[in-house]
Amino acid sequence: MIILLKNGVEKTQVDNLINWVKSQGLSVHLSEGQFQTVLGLIGDVSGVDIDLIRGLSIVENVTRVSEPYKNANRKFHPDDSVIRVGDTKIGGENFTFIAGPCSVESKEQICTIAGEVKAAGANLLRGGAFKPRTSPYDFQGLRGDGIELLLEAKELTGLPIVTEIMDLSHLPLFDCVDVIQVGARNMQNMELLKALGKTDKPVLLKRGLSSTLKELLMSAEYIMAGGNSKVILCERGIRTFETVTRNTLDISAVPALRELTHLPIIVDPSHAAGISRFVKTLSYTAAAAGAHGVMIEVHNDPQNALCDGAQSITPEEFAETVRGANKIREAIAGG
Amino acid sequence: MIILLKNGVEKTQVDNLINWVKSQGLSVHLSEGQFQTVLGLIGDVSGVDIDLIRGLSIVENVTRVSEPYKNANRKFHPDDSVIRVGDTKIGGENFTFIAGPCSVESKEQICTIAGEVKAAGANLLRGGAFKPRTSPYDFQGLRGDGIELLLEAKELTGLPIVTEIMDLSHLPLFDCVDVIQVGARNMQNMELLKALGKTDKPVLLKRGLSSTLKELLMSAEYIMAGGNSKVILCERGIRTFETVTRNTLDISAVPALRELTHLPIIVDPSHAAGISRFVKTLSYTAAAAGAHGVMIEVHNDPQNALCDGAQSITPEEFAETVRGANKIREAIAGG
Amino acid sequence: MIILLKNGVEKTQVDNLINWVKSQGLSVHLSEGQFQTVLGLIGDVSGVDIDLIRGLSIVENVTRVSEPYKNANRKFHPDDSVIRVGDTKIGGENFTFIAGPCSVESKEQICTIAGEVKAAGANLLRGGAFKPRTSPYDFQGLRGDGIELLLEAKELTGLPIVTEIMDLSHLPLFDCVDVIQVGARNMQNMELLKALGKTDKPVLLKRGLSSTLKELLMSAEYIMAGGNSKVILCERGIRTFETVTRNTLDISAVPALRELTHLPIIVDPSHAAGISRFVKTLSYTAAAAGAHGVMIEVHNDPQNALCDGAQSITPEEFAETVRGANKIREAIAGG
Amino acid sequence: MIILLKNGVEKTQVDNLINWVKSQGLSVHLSEGQFQTVLGLIGDVSGVDIDLIRGLSIVENVTRVSEPYKNANRKFHPDDSVIRVGDTKIGGENFTFIAGPCSVESKEQICTIAGEVKAAGANLLRGGAFKPRTSPYDFQGLRGDGIELLLEAKELTGLPIVTEIMDLSHLPLFDCVDVIQVGARNMQNMELLKALGKTDKPVLLKRGLSSTLKELLMSAEYIMAGGNSKVILCERGIRTFETVTRNTLDISAVPALRELTHLPIIVDPSHAAGISRFVKTLSYTAAAAGAHGVMIEVHNDPQNALCDGAQSITPEEFAETVRGANKIREAIAGG
Repeated sequence: MIILLKNGVEKTQVDNLINWVKSQGLSVHLSEGQFQTVLGLIGDVSGVDIDLIRGLSIVENVTRVSEPYKNANRKFHPDDSVIRVGDTKIGGENFTFIAGPCSVESKEQICTIAGEVKAAGANLLRGGAFKPRTSPYDFQGLRGDGIELLLEAKELTGLPIVTEIMDLSHLPLFDCVDVIQVGARNMQNMELLKALGKTDKPVLLKRGLSSTLKELLMSAEYIMAGGNSKVILCERGIRTFETVTRNTLDISAVPALRELTHLPIIVDPSHAAGISRFVKTLSYTAAAAGAHGVMIEVHNDPQNALCDGAQSITPEEFAETVRGANKIREAIAGG
Repeated sequence: MIILLKNGVEKTQVDNLINWVKSQGLSVHLSEGQFQTVLGLIGDVSGVDIDLIRGLSIVENVTRVSEPYKNANRKFHPDDSVIRVGDTKIGGENFTFIAGPCSVESKEQICTIAGEVKAAGANLLRGGAFKPRTSPYDFQGLRGDGIELLLEAKELTGLPIVTEIMDLSHLPLFDCVDVIQVGARNMQNMELLKALGKTDKPVLLKRGLSSTLKELLMSAEYIMAGGNSKVILCERGIRTFETVTRNTLDISAVPALRELTHLPIIVDPSHAAGISRFVKTLSYTAAAAGAHGVMIEVHNDPQNALCDGAQSITPEEFAETVRGANKIREAIAGG
Repeated sequence: MIILLKNGVEKTQVDNLINWVKSQGLSVHLSEGQFQTVLGLIGDVSGVDIDLIRGLSIVENVTRVSEPYKNANRKFHPDDSVIRVGDTKIGGENFTFIAGPCSVESKEQICTIAGEVKAAGANLLRGGAFKPRTSPYDFQGLRGDGIELLLEAKELTGLPIVTEIMDLSHLPLFDCVDVIQVGARNMQNMELLKALGKTDKPVLLKRGLSSTLKELLMSAEYIMAGGNSKVILCERGIRTFETVTRNTLDISAVPALRELTHLPIIVDPSHAAGISRFVKTLSYTAAAAGAHGVMIEVHNDPQNALCDGAQSITPEEFAETVRGANKIREAIAGG
Repeated sequence: MIILLKNGVEKTQVDNLINWVKSQGLSVHLSEGQFQTVLGLIGDVSGVDIDLIRGLSIVENVTRVSEPYKNANRKFHPDDSVIRVGDTKIGGENFTFIAGPCSVESKEQICTIAGEVKAAGANLLRGGAFKPRTSPYDFQGLRGDGIELLLEAKELTGLPIVTEIMDLSHLPLFDCVDVIQVGARNMQNMELLKALGKTDKPVLLKRGLSSTLKELLMSAEYIMAGGNSKVILCERGIRTFETVTRNTLDISAVPALRELTHLPIIVDPSHAAGISRFVKTLSYTAAAAGAHGVMIEVHNDPQNALCDGAQSITPEEFAETVRGANKIREAIAGG
């Protein structure tokens, strides 16, 4: 961490700051130039509150040279993390297909779709039991009952299940869930993240609609700081001024995150675009970008079912998407 | 709600949709033109799931003519809501000053500031007990103990207190809190909103960093749908590409919300700018825009205290802000 | 175009509007419901000024059913446009590699790079002669002399050249340029677009930093309305809150534009990311997304040249990018 | 300027960089720590191309300590610039009302409005002769004839006139125009800015839709670097995700620009909101924020005129706005 001091600050103030820094267990490298006084903080600065320093009257600017996340940081963990879920490995050289309906609606629905996506190549089954809806008057999901139905589909197909948690008080209901999803709206629900950090469940953490990649990594750090290192990151589109697509898939997030962190990165093209016709193409870009997988909404009858979104594709389209994404991965595997 | 159908859809599909609409207790006005078939839905459409209709294969576009929020809607509640907190009235013709430190740090700190902001004109005392920090390694607040200290400051000064809740499991700790704040990061924590809807506490609901005004109103609706109509909205800056200020205060949100809703609207200039030098000026714009009050971070020693942000002003600056904002309100009161 | 009228408007006002619409050569379909009065405008509404109608006191809302661009619209030109530049075809089934340095610096520099990118697979040579720089104190390009040097490189290699125009008064200098580029900052320089519409040169039109896809198409329409249909669209990243990359590549723009228009779509990964390490990966995503080509900054000595940006790759890296992008195109060609 | 070098760079590379910096007429302060090597550049660094340095392989990061704009910089010109236009002074303690129609339509229209806005308190008359429209099929303005009509209105009322230029080739037509406006779409039309820098006309420079304040100041610098220091900045709303208003007025830009520059700052509430009902309120916030004036669209018959936007107010509403804004300025004048 580099601290630039303002011109003409008093020596006692600088000494106070240096003493405080040392009291945090850090060393200080002082460079007093004609130009400007610069303090370099040496040691583990990930615990230093940068806002606190920026607020000091003698400070002009503070720059982090090292990132404030440690557990999630590629620098300290050069090898890719690989997270095992049942027989599936997520991360590293693996590419994982997570598929299923937006909402769990009935036993027949979820079991049918589970069978179809498994046949088409899915590794995990997704399905919403608790649904975060913008309106209190919209369908809020089957909640606990939805999880029961997912478990029945798991028993039938052998697919591990991924489903979203909306509040830490529901955690006991997720005991048999294989991967717990944290939705975009809850990416900075810090109490929930802390609670998940004390479990040993894999957590699929979605990027918030207006969250930077560094904030996403800080949220991962909340979970990992609690002792749970099984975090899977998910890029699902950010909010911009463009209105043709519902959100803007930030595909550069994939190579950027691969540099910044060792955690697996999944792309959710269904929520990113909000348009089913683009799901296949955006899945291809995820494969080309080096993502570790995709999470896709699939419905067995999207055209007629009233309870289905414009963003779901059919099992047939999903199968085609799996084939194409795998071909792309093979094409670039050598180079 | 106006539904535009695609060209050339089959009559049976249209009839299915019309029957479904009617089954929801709504009437339909059908306009079959050479040009395009348009369905007008008549009745209380606030409970209709617009995504569900947009997802149908026969639908080109859906437009809400009426807004999907009912309890928060100015149309159905033409008069301003006025929310009573102790002796203070928030909303209507009133202008409320909420002031206090970013974090509660100690009894001496909170009681000193409370006395000073009261003397300067504050109506309510704010102070963070639970702190949502981006980094798990930053100070997380005194939590339950912080609330105890706020209550001591309240007893000393008579100022009602406002403090932020971060998880619904903490609700019992907020029994004696006067106004419960929901932070920007939790604006769409739907389970928390539902839980607050079942209390009778005033809730100060902050706009999310990338939330639209309509989403803010939908989150208010979550609380109000549960029976609690005491919601105070708070504009605190949105995330844009501009970096000189930490966020961009959306001052137009004030006149826009005054049209859309009857709920009181508070502006938080401290978080909007993230720069203490701008707090006075932005408070003036809030008064000029017709806000119902401001919420301001005040620290008794911002220049030296290590635990203070760049966004806090001194009690003296706060007093000047109160005087200026009141003068502006008087200046435009007649016109 | 669908016009929703406000409740309770007077019949004479509605009649005035209908008469005005008819005076524009359009027919009107009037639907007077209990619910709301709706006017459907039938005919070629691309020339109707929607703001003008929205401004009327009797109008609640206006929705375009058809898009306001005609020449660029896929609906009226279902087949892909293919633009011939020398021996190269841009658009349709073709994938074009445009490569070259950020700025033309010297004869040796541009000729060396031209030879290297040609050998690596480039179809066109790009190079900046006029440089739009944020600061008036930064290098502004060799201007007319730069174009001369590009033409020498063209003579040497046979590669057609692409270079940016910054003002319509420079148009005579572009007589021998093969493709004229309009930069992001000039996407809405309407006078320049009109002037280019009167030439018969292919125009590579870059999307503005905060322009919607519809605005990009309207700018293409400015050129096409003048009679020049040789427009190539270029997605080069949009401005968002994310700061890890300089801009955010909107990869969904590719499938979205392929639906909306018949014009070729090129992706510029160099400017999108601003980071040379991501150029190869983002080029792969462009190929996977179905773009018609990529435009890439290549420098023969990026590590040491002082006049080179962080976004340029070497000829070797470019060659690898060409190979990988072609493999991806083959992989998905069948499906 | 502070340059942080990467760890482990070779001494010869560092020496090369230092020699190059010195060749630019700058001194270097070298701080070699165990921690990190830091170069401080001393002297006039406004001419140093920061991207060029950032692109070097040995550089980790570059931070400007001083801003890259010199002529526009408050640091070097501590006193407010006051720009005289006819009898009106813009900047400093003055508050200027600029008013007039969106487009000049006819002699009668512009002369009537000019008389009315003068009576209501306007200091300058605005009116569009050249109109930058998104669609080539929309009304493009009366162009040269519109300027003639503005000059007639000026003769009649004595109000100096402000009108927009769209291309530098039109400059001769602006000989008698008092203030030349550069629109948001042309804020980075560098060739136009340079041409204006060689005139002695006051220039009203609008902020681009997605331009940062620093970019706005760099565009002002383009004009000032040519010798024309009469630049008036205009905040007119930025593009965000919010859709209730057309753009988001960045009111914090006013106090921020007052710190960064000595140039006058005008607010355009009409374009910021795009909604006439908000123009009065947003003008009040401009006065409260410390702006040097407002520019407002006024039409004498907005409700019925077909050629008028939703953003124009009547002369009566404008008169009320003038009164209210002046009251606010008086209210805060003392404090």
